[in-house]
Amino acid sequence: MPVYKAPVNDTLFVLNDVLGLERYGNLQGFADATPDMIEAIIGEAAKVAEEALFPINLSGDREGCTRNDDGTVLVPNGFKQAYDQYVQGGWIGLAVPEEFGGQGLPYTLHAAVGEYMSSANMSLMMYPGLTQGAIAAILVHGTDEQKATYLPNMVGGSWSGTMNLTEPHCGTDLGLLRTKAVPQDDGSYKISGQKIFISAGEHSMTDNIVHLVLARIEGAPEGTKGISLFIVPKFMVGEDGSLGARNGVSCGALEEKMGIHGNSTCVMNYDDATGYLIGAENKGLSAMFVMMNEARLGVGLQGLSIAETAYQNAVAYANERIQGRSLSGAKAPDKKADPIIVHPDIRRSLMTIKAFNEAGRAFVLWTALKSDIAHRSQDEAERQNADDLLGLATPILKGVLTDKGFDHAVMAQQVFGGHGYIEEWGMSQYVRDARIAMIYEGANGIQALDLVGRKLALNGGRAVMAMFKEIGDFCEENRGDEAMVLYTKGLKKGLNDLQASTMWFMQNAMAKPDNAGAGSTDYMHLFGLVTLGYMWAKMAKAAQTALAAGDPREDYLKAKLVTAKFYMERIMPETALRKVRIEAGADTMMELAAEAF
Amino acid sequence: MPVYKAPVNDTLFVLNDVLGLERYGNLQGFADATPDMIEAIIGEAAKVAEEALFPINLSGDREGCTRNDDGTVLVPNGFKQAYDQYVQGGWIGLAVPEEFGGQGLPYTLHAAVGEYMSSANMSLMMYPGLTQGAIAAILVHGTDEQKATYLPNMVGGSWSGTMNLTEPHCGTDLGLLRTKAVPQDDGSYKISGQKIFISAGEHSMTDNIVHLVLARIEGAPEGTKGISLFIVPKFMVGEDGSLGARNGVSCGALEEKMGIHGNSTCVMNYDDATGYLIGAENKGLSAMFVMMNEARLGVGLQGLSIAETAYQNAVAYANERIQGRSLSGAKAPDKKADPIIVHPDIRRSLMTIKAFNEAGRAFVLWTALKSDIAHRSQDEAERQNADDLLGLATPILKGVLTDKGFDHAVMAQQVFGGHGYIEEWGMSQYVRDARIAMIYEGANGIQALDLVGRKLALNGGRAVMAMFKEIGDFCEENRGDEAMVLYTKGLKKGLNDLQASTMWFMQNAMAKPDNAGAGSTDYMHLFGLVTLGYMWAKMAKAAQTALAAGDPREDYLKAKLVTAKFYMERIMPETALRKVRIEAGADTMMELAAEAF
Repeated sequence: MPVYKAPVNDTLFVLNDVLGLERYGNLQGFADATPDMIEAIIGEAAKVAEEALFPINLSGDREGCTRNDDGTVLVPNGFKQAYDQYVQGGWIGLAVPEEFGGQGLPYTLHAAVGEYMSSANMSLMMYPGLTQGAIAAILVHGTDEQKATYLPNMVGGSWSGTMNLTEPHCGTDLGLLRTKAVPQDDGSYKISGQKIFISAGEHSMTDNIVHLVLARIEGAPEGTKGISLFIVPKFMVGEDGSLGARNGVSCGALEEKMGIHGNSTCVMNYDDATGYLIGAENKGLSAMFVMMNEARLGVGLQGLSIAETAYQNAVAYANERIQGRSLSGAKAPDKKADPIIVHPDIRRSLMTIKAFNEAGRAFVLWTALKSDIAHRSQDEAERQNADDLLGLATPILKGVLTDKGFDHAVMAQQVFGGHGYIEEWGMSQYVRDARIAMIYEGANGIQALDLVGRKLALNGGRAVMAMFKEIGDFCEENRGDEAMVLYTKGLKKGLNDLQASTMWFMQNAMAKPDNAGAGSTDYMHLFGLVTLGYMWAKMAKAAQTALAAGDPREDYLKAKLVTAKFYMERIMPETALRKVRIEAGADTMMELAAEAF
Repeated sequence: MPVYKAPVNDTLFVLNDVLGLERYGNLQGFADATPDMIEAIIGEAAKVAEEALFPINLSGDREGCTRNDDGTVLVPNGFKQAYDQYVQGGWIGLAVPEEFGGQGLPYTLHAAVGEYMSSANMSLMMYPGLTQGAIAAILVHGTDEQKATYLPNMVGGSWSGTMNLTEPHCGTDLGLLRTKAVPQDDGSYKISGQKIFISAGEHSMTDNIVHLVLARIEGAPEGTKGISLFIVPKFMVGEDGSLGARNGVSCGALEEKMGIHGNSTCVMNYDDATGYLIGAENKGLSAMFVMMNEARLGVGLQGLSIAETAYQNAVAYANERIQGRSLSGAKAPDKKADPIIVHPDIRRSLMTIKAFNEAGRAFVLWTALKSDIAHRSQDEAERQNADDLLGLATPILKGVLTDKGFDHAVMAQQVFGGHGYIEEWGMSQYVRDARIAMIYEGANGIQALDLVGRKLALNGGRAVMAMFKEIGDFCEENRGDEAMVLYTKGLKKGLNDLQASTMWFMQNAMAKPDNAGAGSTDYMHLFGLVTLGYMWAKMAKAAQTALAAGDPREDYLKAKLVTAKFYMERIMPETALRKVRIEAGADTMMELAAEAF
C-alpha cells in the first residue's frame, strides 16, 4: 500500500540549476559526469530504489532479523536478492577511486543516489552504508597492503564492513572503552571485549565482514589517547586473498529495537580475535572519525530520506481520503466530502515538510559538493574553504535533518489520523525508523556540542566566518533584484539572529562553558534554519532565472517560489526564538540540585 | 528496569496550595474530601499504580493481545488481576453519584488519581477509561431504566464500556457514517455495520461489555443530523439483570498498532445486533459528545501521564549513567566520568519536561475543578463561568498536553542515547504509547479547529473573555508584588500575543475562514503556552506564600520558583513565534495546486 517515487526532477533541479554542477568540470571525476550521464545515473538509481528496495521495506520491518542458536543471523526475505542487485549495479563504489574498483564519480552524485536508496529501504541500505564508512577509513588510513586486501571486495559488495565503537558502559565517552588488544609476535593483535549496537554486525549476505574495531593496546594510556583502530575480519584472509578460518568474533545477541528491524543490530563478542592495526597506534579516534564524518552525512541523509517517503505517502492519502468540506466551500461537490488536502491544517503539515525536504535536499548536495571540492580541487584556498564549510555543515546536517526528519515523519503520520497508527499503512515504520537517526553516529546533542564547542572556534572561527560571508555575499549580489527581496529579507533577518547568537557565545561562553552547552541545541537549529533559508533563497534565484529564460518547467518552478515564500513566512521566524533561548544562558538550567529532579 | 513513583507531593501542592480545594466545601461531595482524606486517597492510588499496574506495563507491551479463532480476545498476563484490583478499590466510581454505586467525590480527585494510573499502565487503564466515558453518557442521556440496568455493574467494574464511532471510511467526518439501525416492534433496533479502532472492544476481563454505538436509523436524514446513539450489550440483559444470549456483535480482527499493545483495539462487526436508543433520535452526536468531552480530558491526561513516566526514567538514567566530564570541571572526580545530569544539554531536556509536566498537572486539575464547579455549584453565574472555561480548556488540554507529552517522551528517550532505542529500557514503549493520544478522541488538528472554529466565537466570545479576565485579574492582583514581577511579566507578554492573535482572527477569519484553519494549530499551542504560563505564575505565588509562612518544604518550594523562571525564560517566548505564524495567514499555504505536492 505505501508508495515511493524518487524525486528525480528535484534532484536534477538542485544539481543543475542551483549548484551548477557543470561548472566543476575541473574537479577529478566531474568531467565524466555530464548532464546526460547524471540524468541516466539518477534515473537508474530511482529504478533500483523504487523497484528493488522499496517493495520489501514494510515486509522487512515485520519480519525483522533472527539469530540462530549457532550465532548466524537471518535477514528478512528478499534482502539478499535486493542487496545483490544493488551491488551489481556498482552503487557502493560510485564515488570510490577507480583503482579500487570504483567509478570515481562525484561524491555529490553518490549522495543524490543515497537519498533514494534510504527512502526506499533504510534498514537494507545500512548494510552497504556501513561498508562505505569502512571503505572511507581504509582508504585514508590503511596501508597499501590493507587497501589491496580489503577494498576491492568491499567496493564490489562481496564483503561488507562495520563500525565497532560502543560498549555497554560507553558510547559518547569513548575514553572509557575497555576492549583490549594484545600485541602478537607476527605484528597482529588479539582483540577481546564486547561491543554493542553494531549495525550489520552479522549476516550472511556477504562472504566476509570486515569489522573496524576500537580497542586499547595493553599498556596504552587511559582515556581517548590510548585508543587504536583495528581491522578484524569475520573470516581470516589468506595472502592470496582466499578466505580461511572463522576469526574469534561472533554475534552474541540481536538487540530488540523500536525500528530498523530489517537491520541486524548485534552484540558482538570479541574473544582473542585476530586484528590488524589500522593507522597509528593510539590514534584510533582520528582514524574512526574519517568513518564518522562520512557516516554523519549519511545519517543526516536518512533523516531527509524518511521524511520524503513519509511526505509522499501523506500527500497520496490527503488526496484520496475524503472527509469534511473545505471551509471556503465544497471543492468536490460530486463527492460526499472533499479530499482532506483542502483543509488548511493538512496543508500546513504538507507545506512544512515539503519546505524542509526540498531545502534539505539542496543542503545535502551543497555539502556533498563541498566534500568533492575539499578532496578533489587543485586550488589550495578553494580546498580549504570547502573543507571548512564541510566540517561546519556536518553536525548541522546530521542534527537538524534527523531531528526534523523525525518530526516530519510524525507530522505525516498525523495526516492519516487513526490509520497512521496502524502498522499496515507503513507510517508507523517511518516514525520508528527515523527515530534512530537522531541517536546514532553521535546523538544530536553531541552534534550540537561539536558545532558549538569545536567547529565554531576552530582556526579562529574561520569556517563560520566563511559561511557568513557566503550567505552575506549572496544577499549582497541580489540586493538590486526586486524579485528576490522577499527571500533575501527573511534570510538576512535570520542571519542577523545567527550572528548575534554567535557573538553571544564569544562573549559569554569563554569564561563559562556551560553557557555554550545550554544553548548548543538551539544554536544548531538556528544555524540549520538559516542554512536551509539560504538554500531556499538560492533555489528561488535559480527558479526565477529559469523562468525568465522561458524554461518549460513553469508550474514546477513557480511552486518553488511559493514554497520558498512559505519557508520565509512561517519557518524562518523561528530564529528569533532560538536566539532568545540561547541568550537565556545556563544559570536557571543549572540551578537545581540533581535531587530536585 | 523502568521506574515509576507517583508524584504525590506535587499533586497535593496543586490541590492544596495552588487550587485551595478546601475553599470549595460548598460543592457537592467536596465536604467529604477533607485534606486528610484527599491525602489518604491519593496515597492509596499511588500504591495501586506503582505496585499493581506498573509492574506489568512493559510485559503488556511485549505480549500484546491475541484474538482467538472464535473471536475471543486474550489480554496480556496479569491484566485481569490488576484490573480486578483496580475495580475492587472502587476507582471507577470515585466521582460517580452514590446512587449508582459511586463515591460521589470530586472529579478533580478522579483526575489526580487518573494521572497515576495512566502513568503506570496506559493500555490497561483504557479498559476502565472507556467504561467511564460510557458511564458519563448514560448518566446524562440514559433513561432511569437504562441507568438502573447498566450503571451499577459498570461502576462496579464487572461490566465495561466502549465507544463506537469510527468506520473505515469515516473518522472525523461522522456525517458519512453508514452503520444502520432498523426499528423493531418492541422499541429496540437491529444494528448492522462495521466499526474500526474500537478500544477495549472485546476481552473477557468483564462479564459484559456495553457498546455505545453511533448509527443511522433507517430513513434518517443524511449527514450528522441523522445519527443516533445506541446501547448494544455484548450479552443481552434480562429484566432481572441476568445475562442472556450473546448479541450480534463480535470482534472481527485486532488492529496491529504502533503501541498500546496491551489494549485490544478491535474491528467490531455488528450483524443485526440488538440495540437500544439512548437520548433522542437523530441527536446521537450530542449524546456522544458527553463521552467525547470526558474522554478528551482523559486523553490529555494520558499525554501528561506518559511524559511523567518517561521523565522519571530519564532522570534516573541521567543520575546513574556516567559519561564525559562537566564543562565546568569534574563533578564526580572519584569516578571515571560524571553522571550525565551535569551536562547542560541533558538539563535542558529534563528542565523542559519538568516545566511542562508540573504546569500540565496544574492545568489538568484546574480544568477538572472547573468541571466540578460547572456540575455541582449552586450559583448559576459560577456554573456558567466554569462551564465556559471547561469547554474552552478541553481542546487545549487535549491537543497541547498530548503533542507535548509525545515530544517529551521522545526527548526523555533521547537522554538514553542508543539504550533509548532498545525495547528493554521501556523508553520506546512510552514514545509508541504516547503517539496515539495525539490522534484519538479527535486528532489534534480537530481540537485546534474546535477551539478556533467553535469555542472562540461561542456566546459572543464569552469563554475566551472570561479566560483573559481570569489571567488579567491575576496579573493585576500581583502588580504590587515585587517577587512576582519575574513571572507576571512573562505571562503578560504571552497574554498580549494571545489577545493580538485572537483579534487577528476576528478581523481576518470571518470573511476568509481558511485564515482560521491556517492558524488553528499555532493558536492552540499559543493558548496552551499562556495557560501553562498562568499555572506557573499561580504556582510561583503559592510557593512564595508558603515559603513566607515558614513552610518546611523549603527545597521543594524553591525548586518551583526556579522551574517557573525556566518556563518564563525559555518556553514562554514561543508565543511570539506562534503569533507570527498565525498572522502569516492562509494565502501562501493554500496557493499550490494539489498536484504540486
